[in-house]
Amino acid sequence: MVSDDPTLPIRDYLAAWTPSIEARLRALLPSEDAEPRTVHAAMRYSVLAGGKRLRPALVLLGARAAGGREDDVLGVACAVEFVHTYSLIHDDLPAMDDDDFRRGRPSCHKQFGEATAILAGDALNTFAFEVIASTAPDPSRVPALVMELCRAAGTRGMVGGQVADLEAEVVQTESSNGLAGNGGGVVPDLNVVRGIHERKTGALLTASLVLGAAAFGADEGLIARLREIGGRLGLAFQIVDDVLDEEGHVSELGKTPGKDRAQGKATFPAAIGVAASRAEAARLVAEADALIGGSGASPELAAMPGADVLTGLGAFLLARRS
Amino acid sequence: MVSDDPTLPIRDYLAAWTPSIEARLRALLPSEDAEPRTVHAAMRYSVLAGGKRLRPALVLLGARAAGGREDDVLGVACAVEFVHTYSLIHDDLPAMDDDDFRRGRPSCHKQFGEATAILAGDALNTFAFEVIASTAPDPSRVPALVMELCRAAGTRGMVGGQVADLEAEVVQTESSNGLAGNGGGVVPDLNVVRGIHERKTGALLTASLVLGAAAFGADEGLIARLREIGGRLGLAFQIVDDVLDEEGHVSELGKTPGKDRAQGKATFPAAIGVAASRAEAARLVAEADALIGGSGASPELAAMPGADVLTGLGAFLLARRS
Repeated sequence: MVSDDPTLPIRDYLAAWTPSIEARLRALLPSEDAEPRTVHAAMRYSVLAGGKRLRPALVLLGARAAGGREDDVLGVACAVEFVHTYSLIHDDLPAMDDDDFRRGRPSCHKQFGEATAILAGDALNTFAFEVIASTAPDPSRVPALVMELCRAAGTRGMVGGQVADLEAEVVQTESSNGLAGNGGGVVPDLNVVRGIHERKTGALLTASLVLGAAAFGADEGLIARLREIGGRLGLAFQIVDDVLDEEGHVSELGKTPGKDRAQGKATFPAAIGVAASRAEAARLVAEADALIGGSGASPELAAMPGADVLTGLGAFLLARRS
Repeated sequence: MVSDDPTLPIRDYLAAWTPSIEARLRALLPSEDAEPRTVHAAMRYSVLAGGKRLRPALVLLGARAAGGREDDVLGVACAVEFVHTYSLIHDDLPAMDDDDFRRGRPSCHKQFGEATAILAGDALNTFAFEVIASTAPDPSRVPALVMELCRAAGTRGMVGGQVADLEAEVVQTESSNGLAGNGGGVVPDLNVVRGIHERKTGALLTASLVLGAAAFGADEGLIARLREIGGRLGLAFQIVDDVLDEEGHVSELGKTPGKDRAQGKATFPAAIGVAASRAEAARLVAEADALIGGSGASPELAAMPGADVLTGLGAFLLARRS
């Protein structure tokens, strides 16, 4: 039997590579037996808590698109996951989103205390650059890789998105209606929400794809197309995240659903409702797929190694339950 | 009249270069007019609050020792100051040292709120690596520079020192005696204190000197000697800091003196008293001076450009009042 499920290649790809990513994360992180043990334990606790490893997988896919070997960018892939994890640890802090749970376990500061969580996040942020500098397959590309990751993680990217996210938080009255923002709540502006998501989540996801390709010196044309693809997939990913927070179950999510609305977060469902959010995510994925292999794709991209896997990624992101 | 004050060359050097350092810090930092304005404002507030700019000056001195031009490493010098400033912002947080004042002004979180302070620190940490990657005089040295800064700033260095510092905090009973640790307080172990200081302050000061030289591809011999010199000057610097906290005045320090003792910090004065601490700092400076230009110095170091300035640095650190 031949399956025509478009998500099969990406699921096979993730199944094939996730063990290598996990093993490399584990090997790179400082040992809990080395001082400072508490911070090393907190770093390992948060990084090795599972998670989809989507960003590392995008780095590998970017490498493949540029004709490089995945094995050679496992370190770069882990570096992006370290940045992602540091941002989760700090976002969960009481002064930020104040989340007690993450991936079904106590968040870092609940487990280790606030001071250790702040320092573990700081250390992971720094460590990411050490890992890039020491593992990039071509040292002459390190300046470009560092600049790419910094732009995605800094105030123009992830940090900027988190700021805008916190600033957009408005006290919304609880609504018994399925559509957040109704029932007297404030409806956030769609462009504001899009801007937050593009920076808070989209920038690092896009950079992941770009880093993998740039590590092998991909030309500007390929990098530009990967940016277009990554931008759409990244935004779709976050919209699905918003929808899952509205509709998901704690057992699947590993965190408390409905928290966005309770906190008055500027989300796609709050701005345009769940149905329109799902449609927007599907539209973005269709655009990404067209860029990768559709009729509008450049011959270069259609022939790109891993195009089939990348195409299935959008469908995979749309279908995810957690 | 000819002055034989050994601190004159370093004072002249700092006076000559501090304006360039300040100007470069100002030019590199993102504008407050660009989004996210609050975080950019917080970054500028904390970085541009004055300070001695000792770390940037050490980068310039390292460059000079390796025969490079100071102008070419101003960006690298600023990067180290960004890392230093991020650490101050995070150390001042309520969950850490809980300091309301820094350099005579409200600390970052008192001025901008905790969330913004955490994010401003995160952004400065990331930004430091972007600045190194984009301004290093020789791009082929970027991997080595990034690794050097990461080792100094991460868990083996600065972050590790801060953890040990927090863990060593013991509730000491207030003592009316001039010597902290007496009067029923717990006397910290000198080796523990030394280990904290070497990592929390010494590592980044040492790395500053090394980064300046490594930016120009200095050989391993020079780098190793600069590490020995930097380690001693860095530890002396922190011991003087401890002594000033015991004896200084708020008007000179720009922060509240006596806070270390009230918090039960593991300091040199708490471990061995003020007089022995001063003597230890002087001993370390004498060792550093011997390494630079004394009879034990290598011909390479004695002839090193800037040796006269470096020699005066120790005396300058011993004499400082704030």
